[in-house]
Amino acid sequence: MGEPGGSGGTGPASQQGMRRSNLALVLRFISRTPRSRAEVAAESGLTRAAVSSLAEELIAAGLVVEEGPAAPSGKVGRPGTALGLNPDGPAGLGAEIGVEHLGTCVVDLRGEVRAWRRQEIRNRGREPAAVMADLAELLRRAAIDAGLRPAGLALAVPGLVGAEGALLQRAANLDWRDVAVAAELRLALHAAGAGELAGLPLRADNEANLGGLAELWLGGGPEHFLHVSAEAGIGSAIIVDGRLLRGARGYAGELGHVPVHPEGPRCACGAHGCLEQYAGEAAVLRAAGLEGIRGDWVALLAERAGAEDREVRTALDGAGTALGIAAAGAVNLLDPAEVVLGGGYAQLAPWLLPAMRAELAARVTVRPWSAERLTVSRLGRRGPLLGAAVGVVRSLLADPGRLQP
Amino acid sequence: MGEPGGSGGTGPASQQGMRRSNLALVLRFISRTPRSRAEVAAESGLTRAAVSSLAEELIAAGLVVEEGPAAPSGKVGRPGTALGLNPDGPAGLGAEIGVEHLGTCVVDLRGEVRAWRRQEIRNRGREPAAVMADLAELLRRAAIDAGLRPAGLALAVPGLVGAEGALLQRAANLDWRDVAVAAELRLALHAAGAGELAGLPLRADNEANLGGLAELWLGGGPEHFLHVSAEAGIGSAIIVDGRLLRGARGYAGELGHVPVHPEGPRCACGAHGCLEQYAGEAAVLRAAGLEGIRGDWVALLAERAGAEDREVRTALDGAGTALGIAAAGAVNLLDPAEVVLGGGYAQLAPWLLPAMRAELAARVTVRPWSAERLTVSRLGRRGPLLGAAVGVVRSLLADPGRLQP
Repeated sequence: MGEPGGSGGTGPASQQGMRRSNLALVLRFISRTPRSRAEVAAESGLTRAAVSSLAEELIAAGLVVEEGPAAPSGKVGRPGTALGLNPDGPAGLGAEIGVEHLGTCVVDLRGEVRAWRRQEIRNRGREPAAVMADLAELLRRAAIDAGLRPAGLALAVPGLVGAEGALLQRAANLDWRDVAVAAELRLALHAAGAGELAGLPLRADNEANLGGLAELWLGGGPEHFLHVSAEAGIGSAIIVDGRLLRGARGYAGELGHVPVHPEGPRCACGAHGCLEQYAGEAAVLRAAGLEGIRGDWVALLAERAGAEDREVRTALDGAGTALGIAAAGAVNLLDPAEVVLGGGYAQLAPWLLPAMRAELAARVTVRPWSAERLTVSRLGRRGPLLGAAVGVVRSLLADPGRLQP
Repeated sequence: MGEPGGSGGTGPASQQGMRRSNLALVLRFISRTPRSRAEVAAESGLTRAAVSSLAEELIAAGLVVEEGPAAPSGKVGRPGTALGLNPDGPAGLGAEIGVEHLGTCVVDLRGEVRAWRRQEIRNRGREPAAVMADLAELLRRAAIDAGLRPAGLALAVPGLVGAEGALLQRAANLDWRDVAVAAELRLALHAAGAGELAGLPLRADNEANLGGLAELWLGGGPEHFLHVSAEAGIGSAIIVDGRLLRGARGYAGELGHVPVHPEGPRCACGAHGCLEQYAGEAAVLRAAGLEGIRGDWVALLAERAGAEDREVRTALDGAGTALGIAAAGAVNLLDPAEVVLGGGYAQLAPWLLPAMRAELAARVTVRPWSAERLTVSRLGRRGPLLGAAVGVVRSLLADPGRLQP
């Protein structure tokens, strides 16, 4: 805003800005399917000469490759060479700190997963430095597995992250508070002998945000949805017009602390009757008579429910009811096109959905709503890590100019 | 998106678009405070010649006037003539259909109210055509009062409006369903001998949306807030980054049907325990022992509460508790910078606020929250009508090119 476009009054800075935005424009056309320079010119409105020059720059930066002849266009003349994103170009590196696991992932420019490593380990209550040492080692190995040059690193964490993506303010389920996660991870990467990774641009974000973004980017769903996920806590991501709603200070999406029964049991947050008291890990395990078990609670519940364990099924039905009540309030407030059950809930969906659907049908009545608007994520628990890695690639493609020397 | 800016590939259409957007740019600089052509050029990055030519066009369209010498700028040379928005230029016309009243309003380009008419009348259950006849007469008179040429008309209604602003799908408190409000109002304006108003661009919108937008435009608050208002029903507007969140199909903001006590009394919407069952007009009057009274319920409750009527105070305290529970859920989900109590609630705020503040403090605990983030709108019940009229002026200023012959 406030910049008058092509009026010529702003000088060389805007020439530079124009070239950067045109580099991104060319990438946008190429990234859907490979296209010839002539096709990009025709579709983008750029001149053929401009496209050629921009393409040379993108090829030199390793972002774009020639893919052989473009598909015949039906037009007279020799088909041009198709340009495509370089599968061996700069990559996105994702990392995840879970309460019971660590994860890393490398995706290439086309969004294909090129390396994936996961380690089961109980992180609750561990020192951040110890967790970071394990994570740095996992990252070092994943980067070797993929054999690509990472362009950036994103870290998914189960807690609230400051706007600049450096400080984890609070992660109740890790028992961490005010941890400088970006700086800690850089230190650990240096110590692990992965100095080249330590020098990358690095941002942390809440796992529920990244899970919702992964669903937006890879899930093939609508541009307006509420993504509800569970790991140790309950998180949600609100996607509006294809963008994540972060709120005034980055705390949006705390569906787990929406009141479901205002006089209900006291929550760890201090309030009463929050959704987490009915559909969070501890609450569901308690209701299922499995309080205090260790290991993967989602897998355990899915296995027992699949084996027709009545107590587990009743517990999941109760969780579904509470999720449905909270989701109904969110739908009345936000009017999403869909509610998507993601993260650990995706795996438990067969036993959560009936009660959730019933509550939504009973409580979303002032506007059209239908049962199929409650959907299940295909990404499930892989969402946050995919969202982290794919986000790195997407921001590179949105502004390739920053790769220039 | 997808247009390459000044690369020259898109021809005359984008030249035209550039001039239109530069007309709007000049208006943006002028509309804060009057400014000379030289100041606009310096601040906007447009050339002095371009500003002069654009200014001539805006003066010819009646949008801008010369205001005499600009304030001395401290620079050498004769001060230029300041350009300002024309207070006698095209105006915004707002209309409101309430359950118990009709309203009209004219604002000039500077946002000053130039005419205001309100008529108390019970519209619940009346035929739309009869209501529109009264409203058309009120509009005709307001336009005469103001003596300005309206550029458009916006209509605030207590119900759900389709995306194109023509169809009122459902207004439970009027007992209307699928009323073509735009077409009906045009017909009535013709019949009232106000054919010039019938020909104006006309859009209807939900009163809670317009109240929230008025608060954004005139309230001087933050760019992220939740505006909670009551007339006959309870509505809310969610403002994110300075924009109204409308949702996937325009139904966002139904805070009145967020579940507060999931097993509570049955609501008119069919669900149980909605906020409206605790803080809506009928519920508060019932709790206050005033069931079935007619007239202005807000004024009556404010008067009795001011006179220390215990039953009324208890009823408002209960409504405040329910509002606080629902607002806490919304804050956890949306992370607004403020919750603003508007519409009829603004007048009742002294008796609603204590309980609301208590619930918010108890239930918004996973992020910083403080009592002063719950504020009261200065606009109160004037919000929707102001939002309607000011919205017309704002869209004109944002695209003055559409006024051209």
